[in-house]
Amino acid sequence: MNRLLLLFFCLTSVLANARQRPAELGVKIGVLPSGEFNAITDVKGVKVGHFTFIQGDNVRTGVTSILPYDGNIFQSKVPAAIYLGNAFGKLAGYTQVKELGNIETPILLTNTLAVADASKALVKYTIALPGNENVRSVNPVVGETNDSYLNDIRSFPLQPEHFAAAIDAATSGKVEEGNVGAGTGTVCFGYKGGIGTSSRKLPETLGGYTVGVLVQTNFGGNLTIDGEAIDEILEQYPYRKQILGSVDGSCMIVVATDAPLDARNLERLAKRAILGLGRTGGIASNGSGDYVIAFSTDEGLRVPYDTSSPTLTQSILSNDHMSPLFMAVIEATEEAILNSLWAATTMTGFEGRTVKELPEEEVLKILKKAGKLKK
Amino acid sequence: MNRLLLLFFCLTSVLANARQRPAELGVKIGVLPSGEFNAITDVKGVKVGHFTFIQGDNVRTGVTSILPYDGNIFQSKVPAAIYLGNAFGKLAGYTQVKELGNIETPILLTNTLAVADASKALVKYTIALPGNENVRSVNPVVGETNDSYLNDIRSFPLQPEHFAAAIDAATSGKVEEGNVGAGTGTVCFGYKGGIGTSSRKLPETLGGYTVGVLVQTNFGGNLTIDGEAIDEILEQYPYRKQILGSVDGSCMIVVATDAPLDARNLERLAKRAILGLGRTGGIASNGSGDYVIAFSTDEGLRVPYDTSSPTLTQSILSNDHMSPLFMAVIEATEEAILNSLWAATTMTGFEGRTVKELPEEEVLKILKKAGKLKK
Amino acid sequence: MNRLLLLFFCLTSVLANARQRPAELGVKIGVLPSGEFNAITDVKGVKVGHFTFIQGDNVRTGVTSILPYDGNIFQSKVPAAIYLGNAFGKLAGYTQVKELGNIETPILLTNTLAVADASKALVKYTIALPGNENVRSVNPVVGETNDSYLNDIRSFPLQPEHFAAAIDAATSGKVEEGNVGAGTGTVCFGYKGGIGTSSRKLPETLGGYTVGVLVQTNFGGNLTIDGEAIDEILEQYPYRKQILGSVDGSCMIVVATDAPLDARNLERLAKRAILGLGRTGGIASNGSGDYVIAFSTDEGLRVPYDTSSPTLTQSILSNDHMSPLFMAVIEATEEAILNSLWAATTMTGFEGRTVKELPEEEVLKILKKAGKLKK
Amino acid sequence: MNRLLLLFFCLTSVLANARQRPAELGVKIGVLPSGEFNAITDVKGVKVGHFTFIQGDNVRTGVTSILPYDGNIFQSKVPAAIYLGNAFGKLAGYTQVKELGNIETPILLTNTLAVADASKALVKYTIALPGNENVRSVNPVVGETNDSYLNDIRSFPLQPEHFAAAIDAATSGKVEEGNVGAGTGTVCFGYKGGIGTSSRKLPETLGGYTVGVLVQTNFGGNLTIDGEAIDEILEQYPYRKQILGSVDGSCMIVVATDAPLDARNLERLAKRAILGLGRTGGIASNGSGDYVIAFSTDEGLRVPYDTSSPTLTQSILSNDHMSPLFMAVIEATEEAILNSLWAATTMTGFEGRTVKELPEEEVLKILKKAGKLKK
Repeated sequence: MNRLLLLFFCLTSVLANARQRPAELGVKIGVLPSGEFNAITDVKGVKVGHFTFIQGDNVRTGVTSILPYDGNIFQSKVPAAIYLGNAFGKLAGYTQVKELGNIETPILLTNTLAVADASKALVKYTIALPGNENVRSVNPVVGETNDSYLNDIRSFPLQPEHFAAAIDAATSGKVEEGNVGAGTGTVCFGYKGGIGTSSRKLPETLGGYTVGVLVQTNFGGNLTIDGEAIDEILEQYPYRKQILGSVDGSCMIVVATDAPLDARNLERLAKRAILGLGRTGGIASNGSGDYVIAFSTDEGLRVPYDTSSPTLTQSILSNDHMSPLFMAVIEATEEAILNSLWAATTMTGFEGRTVKELPEEEVLKILKKAGKLKK
Repeated sequence: MNRLLLLFFCLTSVLANARQRPAELGVKIGVLPSGEFNAITDVKGVKVGHFTFIQGDNVRTGVTSILPYDGNIFQSKVPAAIYLGNAFGKLAGYTQVKELGNIETPILLTNTLAVADASKALVKYTIALPGNENVRSVNPVVGETNDSYLNDIRSFPLQPEHFAAAIDAATSGKVEEGNVGAGTGTVCFGYKGGIGTSSRKLPETLGGYTVGVLVQTNFGGNLTIDGEAIDEILEQYPYRKQILGSVDGSCMIVVATDAPLDARNLERLAKRAILGLGRTGGIASNGSGDYVIAFSTDEGLRVPYDTSSPTLTQSILSNDHMSPLFMAVIEATEEAILNSLWAATTMTGFEGRTVKELPEEEVLKILKKAGKLKK
Repeated sequence: MNRLLLLFFCLTSVLANARQRPAELGVKIGVLPSGEFNAITDVKGVKVGHFTFIQGDNVRTGVTSILPYDGNIFQSKVPAAIYLGNAFGKLAGYTQVKELGNIETPILLTNTLAVADASKALVKYTIALPGNENVRSVNPVVGETNDSYLNDIRSFPLQPEHFAAAIDAATSGKVEEGNVGAGTGTVCFGYKGGIGTSSRKLPETLGGYTVGVLVQTNFGGNLTIDGEAIDEILEQYPYRKQILGSVDGSCMIVVATDAPLDARNLERLAKRAILGLGRTGGIASNGSGDYVIAFSTDEGLRVPYDTSSPTLTQSILSNDHMSPLFMAVIEATEEAILNSLWAATTMTGFEGRTVKELPEEEVLKILKKAGKLKK
Repeated sequence: MNRLLLLFFCLTSVLANARQRPAELGVKIGVLPSGEFNAITDVKGVKVGHFTFIQGDNVRTGVTSILPYDGNIFQSKVPAAIYLGNAFGKLAGYTQVKELGNIETPILLTNTLAVADASKALVKYTIALPGNENVRSVNPVVGETNDSYLNDIRSFPLQPEHFAAAIDAATSGKVEEGNVGAGTGTVCFGYKGGIGTSSRKLPETLGGYTVGVLVQTNFGGNLTIDGEAIDEILEQYPYRKQILGSVDGSCMIVVATDAPLDARNLERLAKRAILGLGRTGGIASNGSGDYVIAFSTDEGLRVPYDTSSPTLTQSILSNDHMSPLFMAVIEATEEAILNSLWAATTMTGFEGRTVKELPEEEVLKILKKAGKLKK
């Protein structure tokens, strides 16, 4: 596939999606304000790119990249932590991040069986960067959910250049949501899921930090929107229907912040994101690989690969000032999940299966009746 | 203090509380039905006892005991796990439970500075049991929250016999809630907190197991009841008022089940309870010591102290059948927290401070308006 | 490369190595006896295969497979645990093993940059097995060390068929050691390292269980053989020479046992293996990715993929009977590391670098003088 | 008991012990030099105190205090971590240290059933310090081993003032070893164990940092001294005699360093100490509660209780410079354990039982024959 065609795949989604987001419709999640784009890219320097792969009847998959900053991440690593909400999943890179407290590649999200290819692509990307000529060890970080209901996952449709394309496509500003990138073929609460994002900004008195979240939603439970039990009202929650299997799936959550957090407090921040998932009705079911990857973009906390200096001097946020960030990440995660459902549209894929989008009109009626539309 | 007086302290709370519980008022949390008492004691064999200590102007504290079964727990231990939601707390017993996967004493809950005395009381209780004459090592399990806003915690009011009294008082059936036992002096979401309990029972097709939860609520966040943002509507959530400190505190959660779960799956079950806390608006703030202790009452999983037989033969639930239990524990935890708020009544204590009870009437109005009262 | 040629690469090592092993020379590590082959394959059913890739001047690498049993591991998983001795490494598969307590593929060891390719090979191997036609999610387990001192690791020499070849080559009985498979290009204590293996068998009074260990040695420290400080006597330990870098590297340790251990006790067993590494003078240096993968071959503990039965009935060893297994794994790990050094021979590779083999004659002299040769 | 008598109990041990330490006899463990006192107190500011309680026929127990520095530790906490080598033990304080990364009280070591009393003593000590008048939450850190073979542990001989006495007695400089403090009644490798300490100092080129270790030895295995299998030579290792029980017990290890380590790298340092235990023949048996508490005395890393400043500015050692410290802690732990055995003398205690001291003469003969005496 040539680069032009790849660009085409990366951009189609941009045009496809014109729905209003929940916040624009008056759905107000939590109490804190969002950043400019209500996206993970509100954390300065963070970029997101998608490669969306829809081909023929059976391929519905893709790749999403999250870049902590624009530069050689291997040479100047970012503090990071990964929280295992429910580790029934194939995420790559966990153990080194836990040991050393940092990330040295962009983060890729993709489908379950593509983790190996995505990992290799990140390794090749990294060792090819100018300045990395002598690098012989790389810890790629790749998350995944299983899109095999709509995507012919066993055919390994994604090619090496597709992962590179997702990295190339990364930009700041607005982030496309729904059936794009790693969310192309995912299913959430029985509806079409996908990519979603949101952010929260703390008041200056609490530090003025921004927390951004991006999710790849492919999980189940009893869908709850701003406290309204949508599944119950529409009479389709799994345990009424006894469809146990349908609650399975996974949710990948990526958290960025400009707050100066070390790995220990990033892990604590990551842990709270799962509470946002719970507020949407998620139950972290047995089969749901729910992981949270959190990093700080604070430049003073970068970890140089060149270790000629034995010590690092840094300013970190103290434990006692973490609570507002915890609230922010819970709110942003809840809204990012809702945003993914809102943006995703009905899709037909593998073996002719169709997954319907969230019935927006019905949902808005329910929210309005409950007084949950703030305009 | 003589035994009769102790009994008096244990029983006063029973008479004090006659409010209806949320479920009786039409508040329906989740989709699964509750057990007979909507309490942790719905798990057969589990007993709960309170020692409530209200004395003079400044003592507002107590002890709550949870007995996995009636018998010598040291000689026949129960499989157990403890999940660290946020480990800013002084819970005793964690490391051995993690290593060995079982609990060998009753569980006590009390105030922060009484953990040592409660631990010693459990050790003395255990070594004094018939059959334990040669026991020289005991791992007491004690949870705590900090009731020092209403209680003169630095005066160490609780005496050794008070912990014994809480164990003695343990009974099956109905469990007193609110300002009793370890919940006597606690504060939750700025209102009077306390002890709460709830249960869920799975349909027979999903195993028919019961999950019971008991909480000691002393934490903050933005109070949400069945999806209604009470704090926001009543205009008092912490971040509008910038009262950061007020979100601190803690929540102890004890989970019992008759499902045959080994320690690994009990830890997974415990982990989900925190999602129930999140659904009430809790954020697991920095200062909130949020722990979940989970155990199984399945008799086939007991671990004998006498290890003459090198192997244990047991039937355990497989990973793939855990999801309904996850849903159950989330629902029961959410409701147990609400029950604690509902049962607690306005209290004046240490240094003349007063903490008001949840304004039930206003809350019911809000819930009614939102269509959340199911009768 | 055709299958015949692959077979050639798999077999060359067999012919190359005719040295006596330390135990045959009178070096006696610990107090427990070894099994028949003094190898991980003494645990009944376990098979090991190597693909050794020596090509031109610069390729010195390979793959080693460990099969817990001969069959479809995905359909009938084995209980397992992975201990993170020092998680500066790229091992694949950790998080799911931790969550679910089992392994569903063969284990592959290889070089650092080949983890992704090895993972993909395991996924493809698994989904191609008869009976796995509907499998759409696989958790490959791959360990690695960095052989880039002797191997042109950035050229990605290993091809997909090489990983398959290592699995195909797996056999029971004698295991080749030294410059074979994943140990082809490794360096240990400044000498040529490689693959090593050993086993211990408990007396029947302690259960009669076998513990087998296989190591891929690529780490540093101050080499100690049966308590003799070889590095110090030969005046070359790193801290005298201030060659800090030379202590880095990694050690992958795979532990098999027929004792009926659940995941929790397998993790405890794995944890002890690191003590064996310590007894050889290893220090788990910052850059050393030291991981221990442990599994039980007990058939009664297999976890069926088909979960139509909600419960698993099994007999597991109780905590109190673990200590003899702990001793066994420490001894077998220590000896397996020594075996790797003994079997490895001087090698010249990437950029003309040469790593010398352990100076056997000098070492034997030292051991003899210290009374450490038992024959 | 009056203060004078307490002082007497604290000082008797000083006079009792005049043996030479192994290093003075020519036993050289490892390659790094020791500090001035070859003790944990070589880390500047660290103090150690013992309260030794030998009374009548049956009381053989005590308390050892380790103070990270002389001052109000609660107001200015020290970075710390606790590693769970084998968590079959009752150590207090673990979970908060893990969550927050610091210690806020002195560390006490004592017997298993005295952990609650020691914890309460630390709480009372802390809230009584000038400046702590408003403190209402304290996380005491207490380690223990079980001295019940020689001590009537069920009689709870230690009184509140004894714990305070151990803190009062803390001094810098030389540290008494053997049958003192928390080591009064312990047993190690079947010989009389006790308190031991040692230190290592890095060359200036590697940072010049000091690592000090103090141990309370009460564990088993196959005693190995500087690589010589003493137990085997003296024909008394447990598995020859099939005395399984005798390997149980525990080892508490406290590690201090002036290197500027954050909690994450302190945990990594603590993890390595267990390798030193392994080098003495310890196997971390099932019943052995082996914990390592590590802290840094670097003043720049203190964590103020007063959190008016949201950020902490600090210089920390980078991951890549940890390896020399790892080597230091392994060597110091190995030697501290040997020191405890060397200093301990034959003791008769509870129920007339006698535990003999290490047969120094025989051991020295063995070491001399093996060329292990360096003078």
